[in-house]
Amino acid sequence: MKQQTGEQLLQQIHEYIGNLSYMREPMGLYDPIEYVLGLGGKRLRPVLMLLAYNLYKEDVTRIFSQAAGIETYHNFTLLHDDLMDKADMRRNKPTVHKKWDENTAILSGDAMLILAYQFMMKKCPLECVERVMEVFGRTALEVCEGQQWDMEFEHRLDVTVDEYIEMIRLKTSVLLAAALKIGAILGGAPEKDAQLLYDFGIKMGLAFQLQDDYLDVYGDPAVFGKKIGGDILCNKKTFMLITALSLAEGEDKETLLNWLRATDYVAEEKIQSVTALYNKVGVPELCQARIDAYYKEGLELLDKVNVESSLKEELKKFVCHLMDRKL
Amino acid sequence: MKQQTGEQLLQQIHEYIGNLSYMREPMGLYDPIEYVLGLGGKRLRPVLMLLAYNLYKEDVTRIFSQAAGIETYHNFTLLHDDLMDKADMRRNKPTVHKKWDENTAILSGDAMLILAYQFMMKKCPLECVERVMEVFGRTALEVCEGQQWDMEFEHRLDVTVDEYIEMIRLKTSVLLAAALKIGAILGGAPEKDAQLLYDFGIKMGLAFQLQDDYLDVYGDPAVFGKKIGGDILCNKKTFMLITALSLAEGEDKETLLNWLRATDYVAEEKIQSVTALYNKVGVPELCQARIDAYYKEGLELLDKVNVESSLKEELKKFVCHLMDRKL
Repeated sequence: MKQQTGEQLLQQIHEYIGNLSYMREPMGLYDPIEYVLGLGGKRLRPVLMLLAYNLYKEDVTRIFSQAAGIETYHNFTLLHDDLMDKADMRRNKPTVHKKWDENTAILSGDAMLILAYQFMMKKCPLECVERVMEVFGRTALEVCEGQQWDMEFEHRLDVTVDEYIEMIRLKTSVLLAAALKIGAILGGAPEKDAQLLYDFGIKMGLAFQLQDDYLDVYGDPAVFGKKIGGDILCNKKTFMLITALSLAEGEDKETLLNWLRATDYVAEEKIQSVTALYNKVGVPELCQARIDAYYKEGLELLDKVNVESSLKEELKKFVCHLMDRKL
Repeated sequence: MKQQTGEQLLQQIHEYIGNLSYMREPMGLYDPIEYVLGLGGKRLRPVLMLLAYNLYKEDVTRIFSQAAGIETYHNFTLLHDDLMDKADMRRNKPTVHKKWDENTAILSGDAMLILAYQFMMKKCPLECVERVMEVFGRTALEVCEGQQWDMEFEHRLDVTVDEYIEMIRLKTSVLLAAALKIGAILGGAPEKDAQLLYDFGIKMGLAFQLQDDYLDVYGDPAVFGKKIGGDILCNKKTFMLITALSLAEGEDKETLLNWLRATDYVAEEKIQSVTALYNKVGVPELCQARIDAYYKEGLELLDKVNVESSLKEELKKFVCHLMDRKL
């Protein structure tokens, strides 16, 4: 079977998304959608969908609309999340509520969610439509649940690691997993394989998000793309902070809590001090161990998928590259 | 064929909506949805869907989920519109962004839109699913377009009557029309009938909205439910104001424009003065003539639907009652 690399699939789906025809009046509604979809990004979810499909079928162009649907959904969540988080920038460009206004961000986001459903339905084979829409709908709802937990965690100091993992499972993993599962369903995979690919996506999503948390503190600023220490500055309840809060004792704990309460400080000092505390109580090692475990569990699940080993290489390569690891 | 009255259908669908099981954690996400769906309202759209279905098939319980879907969608639009319009109250209760906060209104609204799609898909017969979802998706997008035009009109003084009619067609009529069409499709109606019912819904929606505009100025406060003159006070570009702006001349036009620019005034004075101007240039008669025309055109379309006349009586009665008219 002719397979394509992640890079080839990315190029094609990126072009397809760039040529989607949804533009019409009122431009005030559709311009922001074009803007958001045009910001780019890694197109991770559509590529995963196409890679999963490509395990079973060749002609990936048949599901470009569904691939665009999941990317449109993902970009819709970024649009509304940025509004809720009052984020000014996304991919080095002003966010929609900054470039336009809040009402535009709300309404264009709503239209984008509806468009995502339309792309997902378009030319979806009748024998798949119920399962595809079931996975997509359930996942879409779970992503909202993840965002709700994330916002609720902001006001809490007693978030457990388990609660945090469940939050990132909902906010990040399930959509990656759903992309893989929908690709498999559309490719005609047996239910068991589709579920294994879903579970593989869950583990990889957790590994991926924890790696993001880790790199926010320990990443190379030249490579990471965002400023180092951003999560520390805004007291984000990441795996790092939650673990430190549960492990630090006595004076260390007091120092950490003081930094969380502090309102007037030099950014660099807070980042340095909190990072030193993370190091002292062993947070980076614990984080890396978790990442390794999820990554390994994920690959084991992929191994169980009942297709010839060589066919799984592209998907494996793509995920390894994403996690910046060797195969 | 056993048909049910609008009243009977209302009771059943109201109970069904009250018993929908979507509640789960996080409650912060789902509580506001339950609150909005529990505010009640006339359940117009689901009842229209059931009445249209009942022209062709008896067992309306089969499409309760789709009926709940369209009501959930409608309530989602109220939730987000109230947020965008900064409305404090809806059906005599505080709106979601007032009772909770803006982020809750955004995210719970998003989840509600996703739930609407899930209800619409649930047990939707496979032979209908593409057409039902096509109508629903297109309509959902059009409603957003209507809201966008409505917001853009706020900043304009040159809105034409045609533009206004197109705006209310999108914001109000298409969802009523879609409810009827989806009911007809699910009932197995021929495409031509389904389209006639859609077109009937469009006309009735226009008549209904213009009547609402009219009653906002000339209604009986004891019956209307909202305060009289609300549209006048907020300079809402209704049929009344747009017509007055295009017909008023010289001093009258100046007076009207002055009221639109005024920031410091006694509410009652503005309402009385603008109403007097409407009367002077003949706005109420023009509005009534439009309502009559749409109403008549609508009933003519319904007459063309190819089912026995007696079967259409319930739908006719329901719409007449809604418009407060005799059959």
